[in-house]
Amino acid sequence: MPKETITPRQQDYSQWYLDIVQNADMADYAEVVRGCIVFKPTGYAIWEAIQRGLDDRIKATGHVNAYFPLLIPRSFLMKEAEHIEGFAPEVAEVTRAGGEDLAEPYVIRPTSETIIGHFYAKWVRSWRDLPLLINQWANVMRWEMRPRPFLRTAEFLWQEGHTVHATEADAERETLMILHDVYGDFMERDMAVPVIKGLKTEREKFAGGLRSYSLEAMMQDYRALQSGTSHNLGQNFARAFNITFTDQQNTIQYAWTTSWGVSTRLIGAMIMVHSDDEGLVVPPRLAPVQVVVVPIYKNDTERSSVLQAVEQVTADWAGRLRFKVDDRPNLTPGFKYNEWELKGIPVRVELGPRDVQQQNVAVARRDIPGREGKQIVPQAGLTAYLETLLTTIQQVLYDRALRFREDHTYTIQRFDELADAVERGFARCYWAGSSEDEQRIQSDLKATIRVIPLEQPGTAGTCILTGKETTQQVIFGRAY
Amino acid sequence: MPKETITPRQQDYSQWYLDIVQNADMADYAEVVRGCIVFKPTGYAIWEAIQRGLDDRIKATGHVNAYFPLLIPRSFLMKEAEHIEGFAPEVAEVTRAGGEDLAEPYVIRPTSETIIGHFYAKWVRSWRDLPLLINQWANVMRWEMRPRPFLRTAEFLWQEGHTVHATEADAERETLMILHDVYGDFMERDMAVPVIKGLKTEREKFAGGLRSYSLEAMMQDYRALQSGTSHNLGQNFARAFNITFTDQQNTIQYAWTTSWGVSTRLIGAMIMVHSDDEGLVVPPRLAPVQVVVVPIYKNDTERSSVLQAVEQVTADWAGRLRFKVDDRPNLTPGFKYNEWELKGIPVRVELGPRDVQQQNVAVARRDIPGREGKQIVPQAGLTAYLETLLTTIQQVLYDRALRFREDHTYTIQRFDELADAVERGFARCYWAGSSEDEQRIQSDLKATIRVIPLEQPGTAGTCILTGKETTQQVIFGRAY
Repeated sequence: MPKETITPRQQDYSQWYLDIVQNADMADYAEVVRGCIVFKPTGYAIWEAIQRGLDDRIKATGHVNAYFPLLIPRSFLMKEAEHIEGFAPEVAEVTRAGGEDLAEPYVIRPTSETIIGHFYAKWVRSWRDLPLLINQWANVMRWEMRPRPFLRTAEFLWQEGHTVHATEADAERETLMILHDVYGDFMERDMAVPVIKGLKTEREKFAGGLRSYSLEAMMQDYRALQSGTSHNLGQNFARAFNITFTDQQNTIQYAWTTSWGVSTRLIGAMIMVHSDDEGLVVPPRLAPVQVVVVPIYKNDTERSSVLQAVEQVTADWAGRLRFKVDDRPNLTPGFKYNEWELKGIPVRVELGPRDVQQQNVAVARRDIPGREGKQIVPQAGLTAYLETLLTTIQQVLYDRALRFREDHTYTIQRFDELADAVERGFARCYWAGSSEDEQRIQSDLKATIRVIPLEQPGTAGTCILTGKETTQQVIFGRAY
Repeated sequence: MPKETITPRQQDYSQWYLDIVQNADMADYAEVVRGCIVFKPTGYAIWEAIQRGLDDRIKATGHVNAYFPLLIPRSFLMKEAEHIEGFAPEVAEVTRAGGEDLAEPYVIRPTSETIIGHFYAKWVRSWRDLPLLINQWANVMRWEMRPRPFLRTAEFLWQEGHTVHATEADAERETLMILHDVYGDFMERDMAVPVIKGLKTEREKFAGGLRSYSLEAMMQDYRALQSGTSHNLGQNFARAFNITFTDQQNTIQYAWTTSWGVSTRLIGAMIMVHSDDEGLVVPPRLAPVQVVVVPIYKNDTERSSVLQAVEQVTADWAGRLRFKVDDRPNLTPGFKYNEWELKGIPVRVELGPRDVQQQNVAVARRDIPGREGKQIVPQAGLTAYLETLLTTIQQVLYDRALRFREDHTYTIQRFDELADAVERGFARCYWAGSSEDEQRIQSDLKATIRVIPLEQPGTAGTCILTGKETTQQVIFGRAY
C-alpha cells in the first residue's frame, strides 16, 4: 500500500476521496449489484461507532427501537401525493416471489413513512398513546445511477425515527430536539464535524413533509454535505394513513408526525472533513482503535524486552483507551506506520530497545503527520498523557474544520458575487427570492440554498436578487 | 390487558404462544406484507440484547463485521447446484428498478454465501489473507406462506458469519468453535436455554454445504427448535465462486469456507422455553429491564415519602442493575404488577408507606409467580440482594429447562417405541438407517433426526430400525 497511490486533494479532490476509501480498505464496489457497495470491515467499524453514538442519544431522549418490514405495497407510496412524486422514480420493485407473479408489487423501502404510518394508524387510539417515539435501524434502497462510496449508493444503511404527537407544537419541539440534542451534538462532539443547522426551503424539503431541518457541513472542496435531516411532517401522513387519536376532550383528531434520519453518508462526511493527503483521519471519539502500538526490534532478544515493556506500558489501558498492539511478524515498522496512517488511527506509539532503556516511548499524532507531530514521552504517566492527547486531537480536528468553514464562508451583498463565492465556499446572504429563482440559480451556478440557518442576525438587509428588504439570511452552496 | 387473555399451555400451546407475544406487545402482524411481522419495541429490545451478547462473543473470537448487498444477481444462486435447489422456491425477485425492467433480475438475499463468495474470490489471494473472518448483521427474506411471529417469517433478522480458511481442519475448527464458544455459550449462559449440540444428517444439512452442525432446544410442547447452525461448506462454494489462494508452497488451491447464523427465531425460543401461563418470562441476563420498582401510595403525602424512599433505595443501582421505576399516575399497582408480569420482567420491587416506616421492600420473582415468590427484604443491602437474586433466577430458569428436557427425553431400544416417544419429547436411540428411512419416518411420524449429538456414549448398540450394530446415537423429535 504505497502512499503514492493517494492523489493529492489539490490535484483531483474526487479521486483523492476514492483513493482514501480504497487505501483505508473501507469499501469495495459491488459492480455486480448496480449502484451498491460492500461496507468492508474498516468502513463498517466506523458505522458501528456512529450507530453507538447516535443510538445512545436516541435512547437517552426517550425513544425505543423497533423494526418494520423491508417491503412496502406499491399502493402505499401513492397515498401521499408529493411523497410518490419524490420517490417513485427511484424505487426497486419486487414483482415475483415464491415462484409466482405477485398481484400487487412491493417496493423496497426508500424510506418508511408510509409503511410505518400504516401501523401507527392501528396503534394510536388515544392521547394517552402519545407521544409515540420509535426509531429504526435499517437498510433502504433508492436506485442510483452514479454511485459514490458512502455518499451515494443504491442501498445504504441508516436510522429513521418516526414519531407521533398530539399537537403541532409537540411535533415541532421533537423535530428541533433531534436536530440539536441528537444529531448536532453527535456530529460536533463525536465526529468533530461543525454543522450549520437550519430550515430547508420549500424546494428542498422532504417530499410530503411540512418543514425540513438539516445539518450542513463543509467538505474540503468547499462543497456542502447534508449530514442529517429532521422533518416535521405536519398532518400530511396522518391524513394519508388515517393516524387519529381521541383527545382529552374526547374529540377525534389527526395526529402530527415527524421523521428524521442519518445514514452511512456520515462516513463520507467524516472522511472528507478530516482526512489529508497521507490518508484517512478518524477523530478519536469515533475511532474503533484510538492508539496503535508498534514494537520495534531487530532480533529475538530485543523483541522479548520490547514486548515486555509494551505489556507494562499498556497494562492499565483496557477500559481507558481503545488500542491495538501491532506485533505482526515479517513487516517493517515503516510499513506498519504507513498502514495505520492510511487507516487514520489517531495516535501511534512506537517502542524500541532504546525506549526500553530510557523508559520512554515515541508518540506520533495522526492529525499532525510527520516529524512535527512526534514526541518523546516518558512511560511513567503515559496513559493519562494519551487520554489528554486524544481529547486535544478531537478538539484540534473540530477547530480546524470550523476555521476552514469560516475561512470559506462569504457574506455577500450583491448577486454578482454569488457565482464566485459558491466556487470557493458557502455564500451567506439576505434572501427573499422564490422557488423559481432558486431553480434558475441552480441551473446557472449549480448552487442551491443549503439551509436557512436557525441563527439569524436579527436585523434586516437587502435580498441579493430581488432587492427586497428581509430579515432572512440563507446559505448558498454547491452540494453533494 | 387482562390476564384471562392468555390461553393456558395445556389447553392450546400454539394459541398460548401467540397470546404471550400479543400480551407482551412484542410483535404485530404485517398483514399488508405477506408473511412479515413488525418487531415492536418490547420484542426488538430482546433482539438488541441477543445482538449484544452474540456480537461481543463474535468479536472476542477474532471476527469483524461488514455489510454486503441485499440484492444478489439471480444467476449467482445457480452456481452451486444444491444451493439453488434449496433456496430457489422461496426467493423474492426484483425485476424492475428506477422505472425500468431489469435485464437480469435480482433476488433479495435468502442467505449470502453466493454474493459474499463473489467478493471473497476478489479479496483472497494468498495464504497470508487467511483466515478471513467476517460477520454480517442483516435482514434476509425467504417467502413464507405460514408465518408465525419470530419462529417463521418471510423477512427476518439474523447474523451470518462467513469465513475462509486454508485447510479443511481450520474450517472444521472454526465451525465447531462457533458452535461451542459463540452459540452454545450464549444460549446456555445468557438465554438460559440448554441446547444439544450435534451434526445434522445429510438430509437435513445446509443446501450446498459439506457438514452442518446445529444447536437444538426443547420447547415446552416437547418440540425441537433448531436455534442456530454452523456449516462447514468444504470447498463447494470456493469452487462455485473461484475462491482460491496461493499457499506457502506457491501452489494455487481452493479455499475452505464456513458459514453460521442465528436469527430472530431465538426470540421465539426464549419465549417458548421460559414463559408460563401468566405471560412472558425473560431471563435476567437478557432482560432489557431486570428490576421494575412500583411505588405504592394513596395520597400526595404518601407519594412524596414513598418516592423519596425509592430514590434512596435505587441510588446505587445504575451500572449494577438495569431497572425502571414505574411511577405512571392514574394506574393502580395491581394493573402495573400485571403488566410487568405479562412482559416478563424478572424482579418486581414494591414499596409503600408501611415499607418506608419499616425500612423494607417487597420483592416478587417472575420465575415464581404469586405469593410463593414474594418476600419482604430490608432496604439495607438491597442492591446486593437483588444482584444475587438475578443470578439465582438465571440459574433456576436454566435448571428448570434442563430438567424439563431430561424428563422428556426417552432413550429407546425399539422402533415401535419411537412414535410414542416423539409425541412426548425427544427420542434418543442408536441409528444406522438411510436418508430414505428418515424420509419415511418423517412422513409417518412427523419426526426427524434433529441432530447426531457430539456427546456419544462411546459404546455400540443396535439401530432401532435396521438392527445393525452402530456406535452412533441420534435424537429424533418433532421440529418447529
